[in-house]
Amino acid sequence: MKKVAVIGSGSWGTALAMMLVNHGHEVKMWARSQAAVDEINEKHTNEKYLPGVLLPEGLTATTDRAAAVEGAEIVISAVPSRAVRSTITDFSPVLKEGTVLVNVAKGLEDGSLLRLSQVIGECAPQCKICVLSGPSHAEEVAREIPTTCLIASEDEATAKMVQEEFMNPRFRLYTNTDVVGVEMGAAMKNIIALAAGMNDGLGFGDNSKAALMTRGIAEMKRLGIAMGGKADTFAGLSGIGDLIVTCTSMHSRNRRAGILLGQGKSLQETLDQVQMVVEGVNTVQAACHLAEKYHVDLPITQAINDVLFHGKGTQEAVLELMTRQGKSE
Amino acid sequence: MKKVAVIGSGSWGTALAMMLVNHGHEVKMWARSQAAVDEINEKHTNEKYLPGVLLPEGLTATTDRAAAVEGAEIVISAVPSRAVRSTITDFSPVLKEGTVLVNVAKGLEDGSLLRLSQVIGECAPQCKICVLSGPSHAEEVAREIPTTCLIASEDEATAKMVQEEFMNPRFRLYTNTDVVGVEMGAAMKNIIALAAGMNDGLGFGDNSKAALMTRGIAEMKRLGIAMGGKADTFAGLSGIGDLIVTCTSMHSRNRRAGILLGQGKSLQETLDQVQMVVEGVNTVQAACHLAEKYHVDLPITQAINDVLFHGKGTQEAVLELMTRQGKSE
Repeated sequence: MKKVAVIGSGSWGTALAMMLVNHGHEVKMWARSQAAVDEINEKHTNEKYLPGVLLPEGLTATTDRAAAVEGAEIVISAVPSRAVRSTITDFSPVLKEGTVLVNVAKGLEDGSLLRLSQVIGECAPQCKICVLSGPSHAEEVAREIPTTCLIASEDEATAKMVQEEFMNPRFRLYTNTDVVGVEMGAAMKNIIALAAGMNDGLGFGDNSKAALMTRGIAEMKRLGIAMGGKADTFAGLSGIGDLIVTCTSMHSRNRRAGILLGQGKSLQETLDQVQMVVEGVNTVQAACHLAEKYHVDLPITQAINDVLFHGKGTQEAVLELMTRQGKSE
Repeated sequence: MKKVAVIGSGSWGTALAMMLVNHGHEVKMWARSQAAVDEINEKHTNEKYLPGVLLPEGLTATTDRAAAVEGAEIVISAVPSRAVRSTITDFSPVLKEGTVLVNVAKGLEDGSLLRLSQVIGECAPQCKICVLSGPSHAEEVAREIPTTCLIASEDEATAKMVQEEFMNPRFRLYTNTDVVGVEMGAAMKNIIALAAGMNDGLGFGDNSKAALMTRGIAEMKRLGIAMGGKADTFAGLSGIGDLIVTCTSMHSRNRRAGILLGQGKSLQETLDQVQMVVEGVNTVQAACHLAEKYHVDLPITQAINDVLFHGKGTQEAVLELMTRQGKSE
C-alpha cells in the first residue's frame, strides 16, 4: 500500500481519493479552501461536488502543500484544466524527484495549445507523468459501480506501477503508452458532448445524436492522429468509451451544458446553472487553433465554437452539421 | 420519383414507407396479414408497430405479392431476419431481373451462418442487392427526426441510385461498398445491446456500460475483419453509430430485452413482454458459430449466449466481463 496525495477537492479527485482509501491506501487531499478541508476532515462530506456521499473517515485533507504530498509516491492532480499550470507550479518545489504525477483533468491549455501532461512536464520536470482517462463519472466511482479506465504514460513501467496500486475489482485499469491519443480523446470528447447535449436540448432524437457522436469520434481521431496519436486509442476506452459516457449520461456537465444551450440559454446562464467547470467550453478554442495548425477539418468543434463565442444559433448549427455534404462514408 | 415496394409491415418497414411517400414516391406495402393491410388502407395506422402515428393517405398495402411489387424499381425487404429466406423465396418469381432489393433487417441466418444479403442473393439472384443500415429507430424516422444511414452495395452505382432516390433533408444516406462490414456491424450490435441492457437492468452504471460498449465494438470489429470487412466501417454509422443508438435508447427492443433479463426475467418472460422480434436473441448462436469458424474471441457474445441458452446468471456474466484479465488496452 502506498501513500497517495490528491491535489484538488472536486468530484473526481474526491471520488478517486475515496476509492483509494477504501482499498487500503493512505491518502491525503489538498484543497485550496479551508472550508473544504474542514468539511472533509470534520463532516466527512463534500456536499458541493459529491452530494449525499459519506467519505471514509481515514480520508483527510489539508491546505498545506508540503504536508499534502509528504512521503507520497503517487500524486494525483485533479484540478480543472485551467488551474493545472498555476497549481503544479506552486506544488513543484515540494514534489520530490521521481514522484509519479497522475493527471486526471481533461482539456487543453488555452494559448499554448499544450496537452495537460505537457503543461505538467514544464512545471514539474522532476516528476514521472501519467494520465488517467476513460469512461468514469465520479458519482459512480464513489458508489463503487464497476469502472474501467486507462492509465497512460510514455514510460510503461510507470503506468504499470500505478495500475498495480490502483486496480481493484470495482476499478479496472488498462495501461497505454499513447499519451497523445489518450489526452486528445479526453479533451475533445467534452466538445462533442456539448453538441450531443444541444441535440437533446433542441428536442432532436437518438438517431441524430448517434450520427453526431459517430462524426464526433471521427473528428477526434483525425486531429489526434495528425498530432501523433494512434487510431486504435480512439477506438478504446479513452476515445469511444469516454465519448459514449459523456454524451449519454446525465452525470455529464458538458452534456448538461449543451442541453441548456440547446434550450436557448445563453453561455453565461448555462455556466451559472451548471455551477461546476464545463471543460468543453474551455477547450473548444484551443481545439480550433490546433485544427488550423495541423490542417484538419473539425466541423463539430468549429460549430460549437461559433455557438459559444460567435452568436450562432444552436438549431442552425446542429441542422447544418446534419445536412453537410457527403456522399460516401 | 420512383415506384417503391416495401415487403413487411413492422415498425421499420412502415416508417420507411411513410418517409418515402412523404417525399413524393409511390409506395406499396406488402403484409402477410389481411388485418394489417386493412388497418393501413382504411385507418391509416399501424398501432402495433407505430402506435400513435398517422400514416399518409397515399400509403397503401396489399397481401398480393405480384400487385405489391408491380412496376417497382426498388423493393425494400423489411421482414425479420428469420423470415428473410422464406419471404424472398416466395417473392422471387414476381421480382423482375435487375430490381434493386434493399434489405433493412439486421441479423444472421441460423444454421447457414449467412449474412442476410447472401440469403437474398440465393433466393433472388436476379436482383441487385443493397443493405440499409445505421442508427435509425423507426419511431424517430416516423416523426421526421433527422437521421443518417448507410446504403451499402458491392455495386456502387446501385447504392448511389438508392441514395439519390431516398435521401432528403431529414433522412441522409451515405454510400458504402463494404457490405460484409455493414452487415456484421448491424447483426452484432443487437447482441451487445442485450449486454448493455443487462448492465442497466442489474442497476450497474454508465461507466460500466460504456466500458462494455467499447469492448463490444472491438468484438464486432474483430469478427467483421476476420470475415473480410473493413475496420473503418465499424468506426462509422453502421458500427459505432448503430451500437450507440441501440445500447442507449429506450426505443431499442434489444436493450429493453436485456434490461428485463438483467432484472431476473427468464428469456420466455422477456420475449413475451417485448412482444416484437428481438433480433439479438436470434443472432447470438450464429455469431458464436462464426467466432469458432474464424477463430475469433467474442467474450460478450459468448456470455450472452450462456445467459440466454445455458442458464448462466446475468450478474455473474456481466461481472465476469468486467473483471476479465487484461493488462494493456
